[in-house]
Amino acid sequence: MTFAATVLTLYPEMFPGPLGVSLAGRALARGDWSLEAVQIRDFATDKHRTVDDTPAGGGAGMVLKADILAAAVDSVTDHRPVLAMTPRGAPVTQARIRALADGPGAVILCGRFEGFDERLFEARPVIEQVSLGDIVLSGGEPAALALLDACIRLLPGVMGAPTSGAEESFEEGLLEYPQYTRPSIWEGRTIPEVLRSGDHAKISGWRKAMAETDTRLRRPDLWERYCGVRGRPASGARREMKDTDQ
Amino acid sequence: MTFAATVLTLYPEMFPGPLGVSLAGRALARGDWSLEAVQIRDFATDKHRTVDDTPAGGGAGMVLKADILAAAVDSVTDHRPVLAMTPRGAPVTQARIRALADGPGAVILCGRFEGFDERLFEARPVIEQVSLGDIVLSGGEPAALALLDACIRLLPGVMGAPTSGAEESFEEGLLEYPQYTRPSIWEGRTIPEVLRSGDHAKISGWRKAMAETDTRLRRPDLWERYCGVRGRPASGARREMKDTDQ
Repeated sequence: MTFAATVLTLYPEMFPGPLGVSLAGRALARGDWSLEAVQIRDFATDKHRTVDDTPAGGGAGMVLKADILAAAVDSVTDHRPVLAMTPRGAPVTQARIRALADGPGAVILCGRFEGFDERLFEARPVIEQVSLGDIVLSGGEPAALALLDACIRLLPGVMGAPTSGAEESFEEGLLEYPQYTRPSIWEGRTIPEVLRSGDHAKISGWRKAMAETDTRLRRPDLWERYCGVRGRPASGARREMKDTDQ
Repeated sequence: MTFAATVLTLYPEMFPGPLGVSLAGRALARGDWSLEAVQIRDFATDKHRTVDDTPAGGGAGMVLKADILAAAVDSVTDHRPVLAMTPRGAPVTQARIRALADGPGAVILCGRFEGFDERLFEARPVIEQVSLGDIVLSGGEPAALALLDACIRLLPGVMGAPTSGAEESFEEGLLEYPQYTRPSIWEGRTIPEVLRSGDHAKISGWRKAMAETDTRLRRPDLWERYCGVRGRPASGARREMKDTDQ
């Protein structure tokens, strides 16, 4: 099954953009995924092809019209998930990315200007509002590109080694452990001894402990959730590594 | 002062990509910002132009070499902030974006494969590790594009109306209020009465209350921080609107 991406946008020329290069680009050329960029303006009904109007109640900017957006969304007649990129949406997680990558594809609605007429979401509850992170973009397109990139790299055959996805950031609710490579000494700095021990169990234990420590220090929010899910007290990474890995 | 973006990447051809179109593209053509994409491989020192090597301790994928990355970073001799896009970094916030947009520009280091040799960050503490969100990309490039897009729209003269930035999501620690536009009735759904009242104080109060309600319901994490910053009890958006706006 090919992962089919349809992007509803006012700027179809932004696609495939970076997704036409490297890993995603080669996978696109191979047919591991497909991409269709649909011009929202094609669903406008007046001769000026109007897609937006001033905000009800006043204010700066323009709001995308619910009737035009609904027509664009309704034109997709299959059962792929429909996502609208908006800072008002739920932050997308790696678990959601994996679920999307395991499915038939995604329809992604990109906003511009001051956003969508809210009635769109009331009238089309199938649309899932998602946010890439707590920053505001000029439109949904850069977010859609990042979201699709995250999905594509998980598709079967796209990444070189099939195990690359399993041990990385967020997959277990933790940040990834730190990585090192040659030269073994650089600017007086060595690679941690354990990584040169050849003892796979010890290396694996060290990596787990480092992932836990870094998550606890850098991302207390993720750490709290991780401890909650595992039903463990958040009482130090090193002890927890021993609990699970020994 | 022109916002100067330098991207250190293995795929310079991904730039400007979507940033060459629409708002950011017009601003680039006008000279409101500049973009330089530097090939990391140009800093390789062997005849194969090697930039990566296998992870110390084993495992899938390849790790970008600290010596090559440091040479690329060191080649930028001005005092712009240097950001490395990595899921191990701190989640970028709208406040950080605004600070970047108010500054001279940014140098953005994009990883690929299994990431950076950790010694890079020990030896070059000037590098700020930032993450776009809790998803894993095939490389830092889509994240860099989104981060730059968020900065560029805030540059003077780039957005149509200068007030557009002030009332939107995250700027006050809240999600943006819902927006509506014509038609006034669509699929039987009306625009909230208050927005057609012409009473600006009432409209402003309603929008604040909606922003607070939506943040509380959709993003309890942001809501908690907002209440903490304001020194208010999280005891219902409506009452709080009255406290501040009346």
